[in-house]
Amino acid sequence: MATGYLYEPLPDAPEGAMRLHLNENTDGCSPVVMEAIQRITRREITWYPEYRSATRAVAAHFGVDEDQVLLTNGLDEGILTLALAVVPRHGRSTAVVVEPSYGLYGPVAVLAGATVAPAQPNADLSFNRANFRTAMTSDTVLAMLSNPNNPGGYLIDGPDIAGLADDLGPKAVLFVDEAYGDFAGVTALPLLRTTPTLVIGRTFAKAWGLAGMRIGCLLAAPEMIRRLRGAIAPFSVNVFAAAALEAALADRAHFAWYLDEVRASKALLYETFDRLGLGYWRTNGNFVLVRVGDAPAIRQRLAERGVHVRDRSSAPGCEGCIRVTAGLTEQARFFVSVLEDVLCAA
Amino acid sequence: MATGYLYEPLPDAPEGAMRLHLNENTDGCSPVVMEAIQRITRREITWYPEYRSATRAVAAHFGVDEDQVLLTNGLDEGILTLALAVVPRHGRSTAVVVEPSYGLYGPVAVLAGATVAPAQPNADLSFNRANFRTAMTSDTVLAMLSNPNNPGGYLIDGPDIAGLADDLGPKAVLFVDEAYGDFAGVTALPLLRTTPTLVIGRTFAKAWGLAGMRIGCLLAAPEMIRRLRGAIAPFSVNVFAAAALEAALADRAHFAWYLDEVRASKALLYETFDRLGLGYWRTNGNFVLVRVGDAPAIRQRLAERGVHVRDRSSAPGCEGCIRVTAGLTEQARFFVSVLEDVLCAA
Repeated sequence: MATGYLYEPLPDAPEGAMRLHLNENTDGCSPVVMEAIQRITRREITWYPEYRSATRAVAAHFGVDEDQVLLTNGLDEGILTLALAVVPRHGRSTAVVVEPSYGLYGPVAVLAGATVAPAQPNADLSFNRANFRTAMTSDTVLAMLSNPNNPGGYLIDGPDIAGLADDLGPKAVLFVDEAYGDFAGVTALPLLRTTPTLVIGRTFAKAWGLAGMRIGCLLAAPEMIRRLRGAIAPFSVNVFAAAALEAALADRAHFAWYLDEVRASKALLYETFDRLGLGYWRTNGNFVLVRVGDAPAIRQRLAERGVHVRDRSSAPGCEGCIRVTAGLTEQARFFVSVLEDVLCAA
Repeated sequence: MATGYLYEPLPDAPEGAMRLHLNENTDGCSPVVMEAIQRITRREITWYPEYRSATRAVAAHFGVDEDQVLLTNGLDEGILTLALAVVPRHGRSTAVVVEPSYGLYGPVAVLAGATVAPAQPNADLSFNRANFRTAMTSDTVLAMLSNPNNPGGYLIDGPDIAGLADDLGPKAVLFVDEAYGDFAGVTALPLLRTTPTLVIGRTFAKAWGLAGMRIGCLLAAPEMIRRLRGAIAPFSVNVFAAAALEAALADRAHFAWYLDEVRASKALLYETFDRLGLGYWRTNGNFVLVRVGDAPAIRQRLAERGVHVRDRSSAPGCEGCIRVTAGLTEQARFFVSVLEDVLCAA
């Protein structure tokens, strides 16, 4: 890319602006996290991090064994690690990547040495299994999808995921990115026992409010985790991230409260878009893709009013669309009022 | 490797033990860092990190421009990024790696697709420039060395570094890992202006006491930094790491005090080893390699007495050697007394 970046960096918002553009938690992490951070000492900061305890907490949280968990410096590091572990450095190989989706998959697959075989969605942005299967070839080593998907927000159900792993065969890895899994409330985790080629990605940057901490994980069968360790430095997770994660996971009440807020915000957004006659996607994530017309101009006008959303209009099937994060209901109400003003003025 | 790890993880020390095995800062980070950490809010934790200000502080610290700096999640991430940016995914290429040195270079070069051409040192572990040159071939794309080197602690001077870059030619990158550069007080930074193929690595895990934060950087010409960005996710540095780094760099007094402690500790260690008739290397880092005989047994006995050092006896040229971190003088005195006991008993 001309900018030199591995993938297009996400746009930043000025201080004080309402950040509805990166699908972060729009409230803040659990107060319990702040307490855990206070307990970290000068000495611990000076030691190479050891995060066995956080790994155990994550294993318990997802109901898997400790040797099925690899903590990573954000899920971004997990995705890179996966590609490096799976794609052979020499010879031809392909990676099937669902489109549109998270912008890192393709560049990372290429960085690892694969050719990308894109799999287009249906016209309504829902998952097209036939396209995904057609993109697979005998030299496919990796297939990457997010579930629920971003930006459309659709969900592929468990049996379909198992079917995709079967289609890929025993030599290719199926990566299911569940970055938004907390909002959907469904997961491919039960398939781990029977699917040694399945790798699930989770992040704590969304519902758990730890984006600044860079903490995610890969979940897979123990043999696969061993393979992944061959492509990651042993001490990549910050001591604050490990402590924050453990504390956050213990505060289920804050998590549940936030999920309720997101649910209520989405309902408010749907209701508003219906009233305004705007096309949108019912979503399983903490964001809503909505067709507003001149997306770049509307994004700009919203920004001028202090609300940052993402222009997704250049993604295939997303013509005229912005994507707005659903966070606190008070924020959704504010966004709605500003959007109405902006659309009225247009 | 059988363990599944990219490189052998460093051995851990039990709580309360004296950690002289990982060349960390053995005191703790600057108290100013603790103050900076208190100012980070719940909201900032929940946002994807933005570390422009820390990047600027690092540029000012090293006297380079902002576009010559790439902050990384520890220098480990920097080394991986470098290898991925420089080594082509297809076709034959080699990476010259000085040995013995930091254990990550070889595995990372292989992970990126290169064949490793090891360059042996002289019998006394000093740098052998002829061996380094002999290891270079027409398909060498990268050469990696640490300066000062670990574990021998030797230093290659500026003109020699420039000569190595010349030997490599315009198409191969020379990586100079200055992880221990703060202790040596010399750097290849002045060569950056005239050597577009030079990449310098620095870490804040050693003298600056931020190992738990995972923060390092790559320094190079702007064009090279752009190339490196193509192999790293844009948001890999934790919000606490960025704030801690900026605060640490501002506390020059603490840094200078710690360097003095290390210098005094090394003098004490040399004096002791001379008295005990042990062979050792005068070093430019914060560690001393010393020949004690049955290194695994002595390491074990030191550990039983609460002092953790590193057994380096399996590295070429390091037969019978342990490596001990030089930190606070009181720690050096304690180590010396325990070592004398252990050697007497043996």
